[in-house]
Formats: sequence, C-alpha cells, structure tokens
Amino acid sequence: MAPPTPRVVVPIDVKKKPWQQKLPLHNRWHPDIPPVADVAEGELFRVEMVDWTGGSVGDNDSAMDIKSLDLSITHYLSGPVKVIDKEGIPAKPGDLLAVEICNLGPLPGDEWGYTATFDRDNGGGFLTDHFPAATKAIWYFEGIYAYSPHIPGVRFPGLTHPGVIGTAPSHELLKIWNDREKKLVDDGHQSLKLCEVLHQRPLASLPNAKSCLLGMIKEGSSEWKKIANEAARTIPGRENGGNCDIKNLSRGSKVYLPVFVDGANLSTGDMHFSQGDGEVSLCGAIEMSGFLELKCEIIRGGMKEYLTPMGPTPLHVNPIFETGPVEPRFSEWLVFEGISVDESGHQHFLDATVAYKRAVLNAINYLSRFGYSKEQVYLLLSCCPCEGRISGIVDAPNAVATLAIPTAIFDQDVRPKSGRVPSGPRVVKRTPDVLRCTYDGDLPITMNPGGA
Amino acid sequence: MAPPTPRVVVPIDVKKKPWQQKLPLHNRWHPDIPPVADVAEGELFRVEMVDWTGGSVGDNDSAMDIKSLDLSITHYLSGPVKVIDKEGIPAKPGDLLAVEICNLGPLPGDEWGYTATFDRDNGGGFLTDHFPAATKAIWYFEGIYAYSPHIPGVRFPGLTHPGVIGTAPSHELLKIWNDREKKLVDDGHQSLKLCEVLHQRPLASLPNAKSCLLGMIKEGSSEWKKIANEAARTIPGRENGGNCDIKNLSRGSKVYLPVFVDGANLSTGDMHFSQGDGEVSLCGAIEMSGFLELKCEIIRGGMKEYLTPMGPTPLHVNPIFETGPVEPRFSEWLVFEGISVDESGHQHFLDATVAYKRAVLNAINYLSRFGYSKEQVYLLLSCCPCEGRISGIVDAPNAVATLAIPTAIFDQDVRPKSGRVPSGPRVVKRTPDVLRCTYDGDLPITMNPGGA
Amino acid sequence: MAPPTPRVVVPIDVKKKPWQQKLPLHNRWHPDIPPVADVAEGELFRVEMVDWTGGSVGDNDSAMDIKSLDLSITHYLSGPVKVIDKEGIPAKPGDLLAVEICNLGPLPGDEWGYTATFDRDNGGGFLTDHFPAATKAIWYFEGIYAYSPHIPGVRFPGLTHPGVIGTAPSHELLKIWNDREKKLVDDGHQSLKLCEVLHQRPLASLPNAKSCLLGMIKEGSSEWKKIANEAARTIPGRENGGNCDIKNLSRGSKVYLPVFVDGANLSTGDMHFSQGDGEVSLCGAIEMSGFLELKCEIIRGGMKEYLTPMGPTPLHVNPIFETGPVEPRFSEWLVFEGISVDESGHQHFLDATVAYKRAVLNAINYLSRFGYSKEQVYLLLSCCPCEGRISGIVDAPNAVATLAIPTAIFDQDVRPKSGRVPSGPRVVKRTPDVLRCTYDGDLPITMNPGGA
Amino acid sequence: MAPPTPRVVVPIDVKKKPWQQKLPLHNRWHPDIPPVADVAEGELFRVEMVDWTGGSVGDNDSAMDIKSLDLSITHYLSGPVKVIDKEGIPAKPGDLLAVEICNLGPLPGDEWGYTATFDRDNGGGFLTDHFPAATKAIWYFEGIYAYSPHIPGVRFPGLTHPGVIGTAPSHELLKIWNDREKKLVDDGHQSLKLCEVLHQRPLASLPNAKSCLLGMIKEGSSEWKKIANEAARTIPGRENGGNCDIKNLSRGSKVYLPVFVDGANLSTGDMHFSQGDGEVSLCGAIEMSGFLELKCEIIRGGMKEYLTPMGPTPLHVNPIFETGPVEPRFSEWLVFEGISVDESGHQHFLDATVAYKRAVLNAINYLSRFGYSKEQVYLLLSCCPCEGRISGIVDAPNAVATLAIPTAIFDQDVRPKSGRVPSGPRVVKRTPDVLRCTYDGDLPITMNPGGA
Repeated sequence: MAPPTPRVVVPIDVKKKPWQQKLPLHNRWHPDIPPVADVAEGELFRVEMVDWTGGSVGDNDSAMDIKSLDLSITHYLSGPVKVIDKEGIPAKPGDLLAVEICNLGPLPGDEWGYTATFDRDNGGGFLTDHFPAATKAIWYFEGIYAYSPHIPGVRFPGLTHPGVIGTAPSHELLKIWNDREKKLVDDGHQSLKLCEVLHQRPLASLPNAKSCLLGMIKEGSSEWKKIANEAARTIPGRENGGNCDIKNLSRGSKVYLPVFVDGANLSTGDMHFSQGDGEVSLCGAIEMSGFLELKCEIIRGGMKEYLTPMGPTPLHVNPIFETGPVEPRFSEWLVFEGISVDESGHQHFLDATVAYKRAVLNAINYLSRFGYSKEQVYLLLSCCPCEGRISGIVDAPNAVATLAIPTAIFDQDVRPKSGRVPSGPRVVKRTPDVLRCTYDGDLPITMNPGGA
Repeated sequence: MAPPTPRVVVPIDVKKKPWQQKLPLHNRWHPDIPPVADVAEGELFRVEMVDWTGGSVGDNDSAMDIKSLDLSITHYLSGPVKVIDKEGIPAKPGDLLAVEICNLGPLPGDEWGYTATFDRDNGGGFLTDHFPAATKAIWYFEGIYAYSPHIPGVRFPGLTHPGVIGTAPSHELLKIWNDREKKLVDDGHQSLKLCEVLHQRPLASLPNAKSCLLGMIKEGSSEWKKIANEAARTIPGRENGGNCDIKNLSRGSKVYLPVFVDGANLSTGDMHFSQGDGEVSLCGAIEMSGFLELKCEIIRGGMKEYLTPMGPTPLHVNPIFETGPVEPRFSEWLVFEGISVDESGHQHFLDATVAYKRAVLNAINYLSRFGYSKEQVYLLLSCCPCEGRISGIVDAPNAVATLAIPTAIFDQDVRPKSGRVPSGPRVVKRTPDVLRCTYDGDLPITMNPGGA
Repeated sequence: MAPPTPRVVVPIDVKKKPWQQKLPLHNRWHPDIPPVADVAEGELFRVEMVDWTGGSVGDNDSAMDIKSLDLSITHYLSGPVKVIDKEGIPAKPGDLLAVEICNLGPLPGDEWGYTATFDRDNGGGFLTDHFPAATKAIWYFEGIYAYSPHIPGVRFPGLTHPGVIGTAPSHELLKIWNDREKKLVDDGHQSLKLCEVLHQRPLASLPNAKSCLLGMIKEGSSEWKKIANEAARTIPGRENGGNCDIKNLSRGSKVYLPVFVDGANLSTGDMHFSQGDGEVSLCGAIEMSGFLELKCEIIRGGMKEYLTPMGPTPLHVNPIFETGPVEPRFSEWLVFEGISVDESGHQHFLDATVAYKRAVLNAINYLSRFGYSKEQVYLLLSCCPCEGRISGIVDAPNAVATLAIPTAIFDQDVRPKSGRVPSGPRVVKRTPDVLRCTYDGDLPITMNPGGA
Repeated sequence: MAPPTPRVVVPIDVKKKPWQQKLPLHNRWHPDIPPVADVAEGELFRVEMVDWTGGSVGDNDSAMDIKSLDLSITHYLSGPVKVIDKEGIPAKPGDLLAVEICNLGPLPGDEWGYTATFDRDNGGGFLTDHFPAATKAIWYFEGIYAYSPHIPGVRFPGLTHPGVIGTAPSHELLKIWNDREKKLVDDGHQSLKLCEVLHQRPLASLPNAKSCLLGMIKEGSSEWKKIANEAARTIPGRENGGNCDIKNLSRGSKVYLPVFVDGANLSTGDMHFSQGDGEVSLCGAIEMSGFLELKCEIIRGGMKEYLTPMGPTPLHVNPIFETGPVEPRFSEWLVFEGISVDESGHQHFLDATVAYKRAVLNAINYLSRFGYSKEQVYLLLSCCPCEGRISGIVDAPNAVATLAIPTAIFDQDVRPKSGRVPSGPRVVKRTPDVLRCTYDGDLPITMNPGGA
C-alpha cells in the first residue's frame, strides 16, 4: 500500500532565521524564482512555514518589536512548489490548479501566536486614525482553542488558514501589477476620496530590493538584482491568489488557482490560527508558524473552461474556492451595522469600506462597555471568527455593512438586556490589557464628537 | 389564560391599493406622521404589509412594469406603531426598542414574488453598466421553498425578512439626513472617484412631495405639504434602521432600534421572501407582500447604555441585532473572490465596493457556463441565500471581497471538475430566460475586453 | 400563471368535534376507509388537522382531562387523500409516494399546545413506574418559539412535525399487524424480560370498535361494524409510516411512503409543535392542532426499486425520508449517558431501551438540581428538541444510549462547574410547577435506593 | 511565559508491541493498577495510544488477522494518569473529573486505520446472524478526510474520538460489575428474549487472566495473579465511562467523569478516526493508533453535586459530557426507519435494539442498490458519521429507531428519484470489495424471506 503519511516537501526549523532554512524561503512574487521542490498530482504533501515575519515578533512583554517592525521583509513564503501530473508533465499556463487543504495547524513546539496593530507611521491598520499606537496581544493554543493573557475572558476555536497561498505570476501579469500599483502611488492619496476616511498608508508597496529574499537565487547576483527590483510585494491579494486573508480557506477546503507559469509554482505562508473577516488591525490574525498538508489536481485548460477574465487581458482573473466541512459552529451571533456615513457625519456614496469601518467602530465601542479596553476589542475583532458582510450595496447613498460576532466566545453574556438581573454591561475591568507602545507621530486621531 | 394569537394591528388587503387600506400606509420617514396603532411591551402583535411597490409589479409575462416603475412611490410602509410599556408610558427618546421577529411570511393567497433589475435610466442597480435593461423573474412559493419559471433548475428555502424596519427620526435627525444627502447630490458624481466604477444613479433621493403618502395626514393639507417636502425618502438604511436589507433579520431574530420620538413609532415594510447579501440587482430580493409577528421590549435609557454615537451628534448611532435559530442550513459553498481592481484594470485603494462588484461579476460569468444567461444569474445572486463578505480590508491596495453561493440550490453540480465524467460545465440552456425589456438609453455598457 | 396558494383539501374547524368536521375524520387504519379528497401529483395542497385527541384536552388549570382521557379515541386523522398522477391514474400498490412537507404550523387562532404524561393505569409512559401520576403543562407559541407557564425559564424554537403520517394498509398487511400484535398480547408481559424494566401498559392496543371513527363510513352500518372490528389502532408506527413520531420530519423534509392500496390513501394527524427524540412522557410532544402543506410525487414501482422487505413478505418494509434545511440550530449540547443496567442494578444484554431509560433518568435528576421539579424535567425532555442516540450497541453486555440537550433553551447556565462564581446548581425553585393529579392506583413506583 | 506545548505523559512507539512501550500499557480495569504518570489540574498534556489491538491487525490484503484475533488482549489502554490539583492534592472519590479533549488525531507516520467485522464464532457483531464471516476494509487518511480502497466512492471527514476513556473503578464498584455480569452469563441466553434476535456472543466477557496486561504490575507476580483474576474486561462502557464509543466525544468536547479512587487514575485508548452511532460491525470504527491532548479540572464533591445515582448504591452513576464546536457539518441526510418487529415478522415490545437492527438492515439493503456489496455498506455504516436515533419509545408495541446518513459522503446521488435522468439506482459495481474470509462455523444465517 502507498504510504499515507504526507511527504514533507518544505521543512521548517522555527529556531532558525528565514534565510537559514534548509530550503530557502522567498518574500516576493516573481516568475523566475525557481521551485524548491516538485510534487505530483494526487500526492499528499506537507509544507511548513515560518510566521509571516520570520520570527521577528516575540512571545514577550512588549509591543516594541511591532512598533519597529521592518515591513519590507514580509511575507516569508515557503516554496515555490512545482506541480506535475502523473506522467511528469508540469501544470501549464491556462490550467487550473485545484489545491485541497487536507490539514493544517501550528508546528509542534511552537503553539503560540500574536495579534497586533502597527504604528500609524509604520503600516497602520483599518482604524489607524483611531488607534495610532502599536499594540500586541499574545495567544496560546490548547489544541483547537486559543486564549490570550492580554484579552482575558475570551476563548475560541480556531478557523485556521494560510493568509497567503498563490501561484507565481507570469512576466506579463507581474508587469500589470507593477504598472497599476505604481499609478496609484503616483496619483497620490489626494486623488482618492476614500482617503478622507481611510488613513492607512502606504497606498501600495512597490518593488523594493531591501530585505528581498528570493529562494535559491543568490543574493547580490545580477539575477538577484534584476528580480529584486521588479518582483511584486506580497502585501495585497491579486489575480494569483496571494495574501487574500480569507478566513474560510481552512481545513478541508479547496482552492482553484489559475496557473500562469510552467509548474504553477505554488507558494504559501502567513499561517493564521484564526482571523476575523477583514483582519482589521492589519497584523490582525493570530499570526503563527505552521504547516499545511495539501493535495493538488491539475485541471487542464481550466482557466478558459471556468474563469472569465474581468479586465483588459485574459490574465485578469481571480481564484475560486470551496469551503471545508469542519468550520467551528456557532449558533448565536450579535450583529453590528454600519452605513456609509463617516465619523464626521459626511455622506459617502455606496461605499462599503466606509460602512464596514463604521460597523467595526460600533462593535468596538459596544464591547468596550463589558470591561474591555477599546484596544482589546480592536485586536479581538481582528482575530476572532467574526463575519463581515456586505448587506446592502444598492440603496443609495448608503451601503450597509454588518459585523457578526459569535457570542459563545465570551465568558459573559454580552447581549443587550433590560434593567433586570443580570443588569446590563459589566464594569469589571478585563485586565491585564494589551501590550502597547506610545504613538510618537504627529498625525491627529479621528475625533468622535458624539462619543464620550 | 392570555390569548396567544397575535393581535392584527395593521391589516392589509392585497386586492386594494396602498391608499385604500383600512389603516393608511406611508412611504416617507418623518416624526410627525401619527401612529396608526398602539402596542404594549410584551404583547405579540401582527403587522401586515404590501410589497414595497404596493402592487405596481404584476405576476405576468412582461418586465414593462419594472421598466416604467415610478420609484417616487417607494417604499410603502405599515405603521407607525406606538409602543408603550405595561404602565402605559410610551417609549422615550434615548430608549432602545428591542423588537423580536417571532414569525413572518407571505400573506395567504398571495404566495408569489418577483426579482427585478431596473432600467439604467430608472434606478439601475449594482451592475447597471453591465446590465442596463430592465428584467424580471417571477417566483412561486411552495411553503418554505421558492422556484421560478424564469430561472429553471434552482429551488431554495427562503431566509425571509423585512427589508425595511425602523423607528421614526426626530426632527433633528431628519435634518441631519437631508443635509448630508443634499450635499452629496450637490457635489455631484464628479466629486466621487468611485463613480468611475459605480454607475447606479441617482446618488440620493431627496425629499419629494410626488407620490408622497403620509398615513393619517390628509393629502393636500398644509400639514401634508410641510411634511411631504421635508420627509426623508425610504431608500437607504440610516440611523433608525430603515431599508437595511439585512437578510439575516429573519424568523426568531431580535433587532435593537434606537428611539428618537415618543412611542418609538415603529414602521416596517418591503418584505423579502429571500435575498442575497447586497441585493445586487437593487429590486433584487424576492419582493412580496407579507406579515410580521412581533414582540417589543423597551430598554429604558438603552441608547446611552449600549450605543456609542459615531459622528458629530448623539444621534449618529446604528441598530444592532441578534440572529435567529432557524436560518436555512447549507454545508457546501462555492466562493468567488474579487479584488479592488476594476473592469478596466484600474487599481483602487482598499475599496470593498469595487472588490465586491468584481466578485459578483466573476460569479455571474462562472455560473453562466452552466446553461444560464448572465441575466438569470444576476437576478439569482440578488435573491438566493448567498453571502457577501469583506474578507480583507487592510492589505493595500487591494480589498478582497468574497461571494459564497450554496451549491445545494442547483439541480446540477456546479463545482469545477477535471475532464472526467461528468465532464465540466453543461451547455444545456436553462430556458425560459428572464423577462426582459430593451434598454433605450444611450449610456455605454462597461466593456470587458478580457471576456467573450 | 398557476395559482401558488395551496388548495385546502381537508379543512378543520377547531371549534367543532372531530365527528362534526366538514370532511369526516378517522381514527383507525383500514384499506376500506374511503378517501375524502383527491390530489394530483405535483399539486401543492393543504391538510388541516385537530390535535390527536380531537380537543379532549383543554387550555385550563387541571390535568384531570389527561387522567381520564379515553385513549380509544386516538388518533384523529385527516384524510385519507387519494393521490393520482397527471394523467389521472392513481398511485398503485408497489409504488413509492414521495411526500414533501413544504410547510406546516399551528392553525391561526389556536396557537397553543400541551405536554402530558398519563396515569399509570391509563396509558402510562416511558417512566411510568417513576412518575405514575397524570401531569400536564400548557405551552403558548410566539411564532417559532414556545414557552410554558408551567415550566418557567425555558423557551425554544419548534421543530414542528406531524406525529402521524402514513398510507393505508392493504388487507394483507392489516392482517399481519393484527396477528403479530395479538400474539404479543396473548403471550403476555410475563414472556417479556424487558417488562421487568418497562412498565408501560397495555402491551398493544388491538382492534376495538369503541369510539371508532371511520370517515365516510356511517357509524353503526354493517360495513362500519366489520371495519371497526378489524381496523388497526393508530398507536404504533408500522410499515405504512403512521405514528412514527419522528421529530425531524419537519418543514422542508420529504418522506417516501410505500403504497399498499390504489390511490395510496394518505392520512395524517397528531401535529407536534416540538418533540424530543423518544417522546418519553408518551403524550410528550407539544400536542396541537395544525396544518400541513404537502406535495406528492409517485415513484412508479418504487417499492421494488428502493425498498428491500425485511421479514416474511414483500410488505415488511419501512418508509425512508430526507431531512429539511431549516431545523433549529444549536451549537452547544449537554449529553447524558445511560447503559443497559436497570435501576435495581440488574445487568441487561445490549438493551438500548434500558440504556435510554437510564440516560433519561440521569438527565431528569441532573436538571432537577437547577430549580426544577422532576416532573417538569420529564415533560420538558419529552417535548424540547433533545436528541436520543444509540451510541454503542455492540459492546456486550452494555448498550450505551445518550440524550443530548441543547443548553440554549434555558435561561441559566446548566453546565457543571467548579466552585467558583457562578457557584454550581441554583436552588431557586422554578415555579409554578406542572399541573398534576394524584395517582390512585396501587402499583409501586420503582425505587432508586441510590437516590436521595 | 508558560510553555503551551503539551507535555507528553504517555509516549507510544507504534513499531513496538504493547508490552514493550516505554510506559507500560494495561488492558483491564482495576483500582490497583498503579498510575504511570501524574498531571496537574489545568495542565495541557498529551497521551498517545496504540490501536485497540496493539498492532494485531495489519495494513495488508487479508482479513485473516481479524478472523483469528484473540479478543482477550483488548483493549490496550494508556495510563492510568493520576490527577492532582495545584496544591498537589489528588482527585478524591466523590469528585468529578472534567476532561477537556483539546485536540486529538492519528500519530504521525501511522495515518491509516481499519474497519472490520468479526467471525460469528469469534466476537460477531450487531448483524452477525446476517454477516457471519470476518471482513476488513483499510482506510487511509488525507488530513481530515478518510477514504478506503475497499469501499470506493466514499470519502468523509473524521469525527475522531477515543473509544475508551474512563477512570479506575474502586474495589466496590469492580465487584458490582463482576457480580452483575457473571449473573448474566450464568443465567444464559435462554433467559433473554432479545437473544432470539441478537445473536452476538459472548453475553459478557468475565475476568480472565489470559493476555492480561497490567501496566507496572509484573506479570506472573502474586499481585498480578490476584488482579488479573478480578480485573474487569474493557469491552463494555460502564459507570466509569470506559468503552462508551460515543462518536461525539471529539475535538473540543469535555467529559465529566466520576472519581472512584485517589488520583482518579484516568486511562484511555481505542482511538477512532470516525465511527457511526452504534459502531454496528463491532470492530466498526476506523480503528487506529493516535494521540489525545487533554486538560483536566477537578470539581471537588462534584459527584454528589451533579450526579444522582440510579441504582442500589451511590456508585451507580454515569458520566456526562459537552460536545465540541468543530464536528463535521452536513446539511442533507437520508434517514432509514426501523420498528421493533424482527426479520421473522415477530412483534417485540418497545425494543429499541430490535428497531435499530431493522433500521440498519434497511439502510444496508437500500445502499446495496447503488453498486455496493452489503458487506461494504455494513462496514461503511459502522464507521461513517451516521446518526442512530431513538425516535419513538412509547408507542406500544413499536419502538421506532432511525439511522440518518449524510448524503455528501457519496460521489453519487443516493436519494430515491423517479424515472427521469438520472434514472434511479446505479448498477455499476463499486469494486474492489472488502477483504473477507469464509465463515466455517455451522450457525445458520438469519433468513429474510421477503428479500431477493
């Protein structure tokens, strides 16, 4: 009988630095980063990965590592893995690569993670204008459950998933990415109405040789220099999948990725023990190292058969996926609404981003009445299994977004109630609080005159 | 024993026009529209309602009624209902009104509905630049299930809910609404970057005496004229709830509405047999007449206790709600991603609206490969129980939105598969198609060069 | 367009007696009870029904009606309904009748029910040797929810279903029933080892002309006398479906019934607002009048195609069914185990009935520590949506049965906890208690020396 | 920070025999088997275990190892583990031990299992009179999923759980067990009416020194001899938990075990990748080696506080448990009914065991029409996540049991359908079949005259 134990095609030693691993990691997207391993269609294989920062953030009592984090290093990815069929023929551009996530989890001996929000001058986050300072919470795992010494009174099962999974772009697709993102940066935030509301910066992270790690390409070589200066950063999700941060891409799910280069060159990283829809604090999942057990199928010609490009070229496609059968099950949800009117009372037109920002702010303020600091709730809503929905997107001028929180994750009843016992919000402080730094910049926080 | 049968406080005769009902309806928000009935806290009561258009759309073989629909009539609401406590004291501004939706459904003898998309020159919809013509599909109900002669091969249980439920605004809140929406209209769509992508118009519907129905206020009276010219239109969801179109506000759920006027003055309407997140085709739910069975609780001082204003005044709040226990249960979902890059390939900054538009377009194009016309899928995704998520909102520059569709609603397997039996998408046409009109305007449709 | 409103084929006036209804009811199974209506395959139709006792039990303050109930009257059924295909050809013996339960619920104006346990000398129940006295609790409905003034502090959504749904037996099948049940009675309880543990009586209810109601057959006629003396009682579920009391046969489910006579002759009754697996107190569901909206399909030759007889004749078959999509959703369950050792400590061999009895007794005693009387819990576990499982049936000598109770139905946390706040079981009495009579018989109750 | 990685308190080397493990295993229940390790309340720890047979069954092409299996060896358990509180005081008789199953799974490198049914003369199974021959199917794991080369066309996520988990009995409890089981054996099967239907033998497995393994007690010592001759066999579940085979005791669940001896002496074994309710083929789960990650809490005095004895002594109690949040989720179930009439047509009185036997037989015969052999289905229903319910236990004389099967585990649509495409059951053979031996005994199989 065939051995069912998955072959480890990318091993990780979490005590080593990203550049010291047995198989070298990479932190950029580029067609010319060579595969570090081959896998056959149908084979069950295991890919291990460092946390997205490669160990730069510690299980300690300070958020200073977050405040000073060099974001040019991210994300450290495992791979690329070349996928071939049973006859040895690699996946080809135009195929679909069906990747089943058969299993995943933390690495034995490294069962912890962290959730953080960046300093406004170093990455920010969805609500950086409200919460400009760097903060951090540590999470420990007890099997399927996570708990944090910094956010007492909550415990929940993880909907674990890789934040990043994608295929390598072709040269043509890479150019499309670089061109459109450069134009955004060049036009500047003054060109964007949403930037009155959304203060996260930078607008985009363009190619940058700093801290560039390119797998088997030797640093400093001419090839390295060429690639490093044109390789795409891994921050946003794009046509190849990538950093989609889709929390439901979990155990038992299956993702259909377009293939742009020979062999598909599958890379993955940025494991999340758990994440809420939107990952609002930016470093907002429970970030950890981990492993994936995967099985690939090549659907020949599948891009044309199943994906319709939406844009100027046949490359303007997006992955699709199927959810898995063992997502944590919650039966009671408390739901917060937001509409596309911003904190200043200004009316926006069907803007789901503004509506979602308001829904998240509403939820933070609500839950802070149950003994939590707002920073605790901001981090919690980034990483717990909450659902962010676009509820209405057509009733001009208001988009309506909702944020649904499973009530079972709390050790208290957080639903509104009338003046009978138990008599409304608790005032017991949930301490200790998150780890936090000062914000030393000079950008103003967004005022909320209606608030306390 | 107390009689458990709910008292009918607002009866409807679906054979009559909105203005002929026993208790007069209204189609505007204003503090001075007088209550038509009182209910006591704890009492189970029944509110019946016409469909949002008051019977203007027919169970027939043409979409002409949609094309020519006068949108100034909408939405016809039942109420206002004044809520008093057991001592007879009405709800007061500053209270929270907890409204439990104990039951709901279609009205006996009127078990049908419709889903439509408006002509681009008369309301449009989320994808009006792709689908500018008016279309319509009729749905029939078999108990919990709906099926359509115009979209064969799908059948699903309804997650029935009222599109509109809200309390009356105070004069102060009404002024806030009118001012901010007028500013939006005055600034015009040139001021909005999103309007390069979002072609739905008008930007907002300002107060308008045309077709105004104000309950017990006699039409043409001086009071009527005053109110008609300042009452808010019902199109968008706002601080009072209103047209939130939240599909999960269904059987067994509970909504906590802020109270702005004495008695709360609860109004409701726009029943939906089923709706997908976003209600993308605008008239996109399965629209029907129906009934609600409600129970209210007054949480005295609850606004201050539970809601934090987010904006310039204490009135800038939003409702919260709890989901019910009998939502339809699906275990398998096919999920489409979209990123904030538009059809022209232009990069937007963390724009969830653009990302969701792309996710919906991706889903439409995908499903059209299984025998459906794109118009069929557009209507289907407006009304079936699909979920629209904000998956990533921080990975600049791309917001990632997802649209998840339960596969069990189809009579065929719509998942991607490799070249073995059954061999991929079917080409059998699912006929007949939706009812449709011509688009006689001269606005260009959005080109998708990567398509066809 | 075809009218979607279901045709009422069996109307009920709950103010009238069973024998006064417009279409006569029946309370026996017999092939010669003539159909009261025809329905066509694919047609949506409505069948209304009285509660199983036909109104003998009242919404009042006494359990005396339960104590003195004449069980020979039960169950009053609506129908039979003859099913024909679109060409007018009736269902034939050997066909399968697929009956979809499209909708169901209480009758408007009659939104209440009751749960009861019979006196040990008049029907008893699963635990009659522990609880020999007649008791009753009234339940009121608030839409999908039920609550009882006699069991305070619980409220739950109904998993509503017909206790009885079945096709008419053929003469041959009827004879099989009567013969095998007569043999059981003739052999007597001394022949049954289980009767040391299971004290419910009678062993079976044989044909009995007393209180016999036979639809359109005129009482007292010679035909009536013949049928009344051979028609099967409706108490047990049998090959034709009948009183299966399967709580998941609810909204949206589909049952496949074997056809034994021309036209199938479908009858139904005994509506339950809610029931726990096992319906342990016997009159243990929330019993009510109600309606079904049904749609039938005839699968020609389906008995042979899908059902394998298990017994001496081709008639020894059982129905199968598919569950519906809107069952109430609970995420947390407290589960009680029982093994096949009885209250005296006697070891039984893989006896699931004994194991389940012990699991139910364990659950009753446990929950009685949270302020409830044991009688309250006995009735509650009969009617709330609890699940009874055969967990192990092979590990000789102990069968293991489990009873799982959704914790969300209680207004307190009923899980075990250590000595910290909240500090274990409450001692607050949940009053008032169930209505109860005295037990005037002289049978001993089962002693539990290990108990208090 | 506290190390979150669970401490391995019982390590297993699957290449070694049970008696060669670093910490010795045991296969009997007795108060005098000494603990092999201590754990503190609140500590996360790991217990590894061999498969129940300790490696006697192989991943090979024959069922001969099943046919000849020496059942006196079972079950090999890991432990006992002594539980102490944070002050070092052990759990005491009368306490409750709350054991949270934080995680579990197969052992790395040993990701396979088997399902089998024993020869009728060597253990049998629930349906041994129908299926007297030994059979075996091998299962391989792909992360959360299992598939079998011997039962093609099914694949499902595991609801993994330990078949055996329990505390050590006291001397008093042990005597109760031995006495009652000996009486059963002494009385013989002629005393049991159910034995006309249930042919599994032996009735019980009494203490037996053969193959006895007693942890740190040296084999052959006088202490060993004493214990071996009075220690209880591990086959049935009992008051201490033990071999309850409850499939929902999975990841994230919590079991409350009574404590009978100082330190509780927790033992566990018999890991199941998946099991159906009832585990009908006896060796019917997907049997494997594996690990548990556990956390214990001592509820002082909890037996008296939460458990009511049901029997002659305070020791006659049963564990209770809470389910976990990540059970596999299925939305569509096909359900088979059975009533308490046996294969000969004989009527039994409210016998849930007979009813369940018929439900299982009905399901086997049904599914065998979709290309499977009956032996394939028998094994499948033993190990797939099907649910066995006691639906009605009061409608004399028929108990109604149901068996619900999730349809999503099949690669074909197994629901009944009418004569349109796809046209009913497939006749394609699902090959290869299960591994099987001949039955060489001379006991007759149960005839089913109604069958083919």
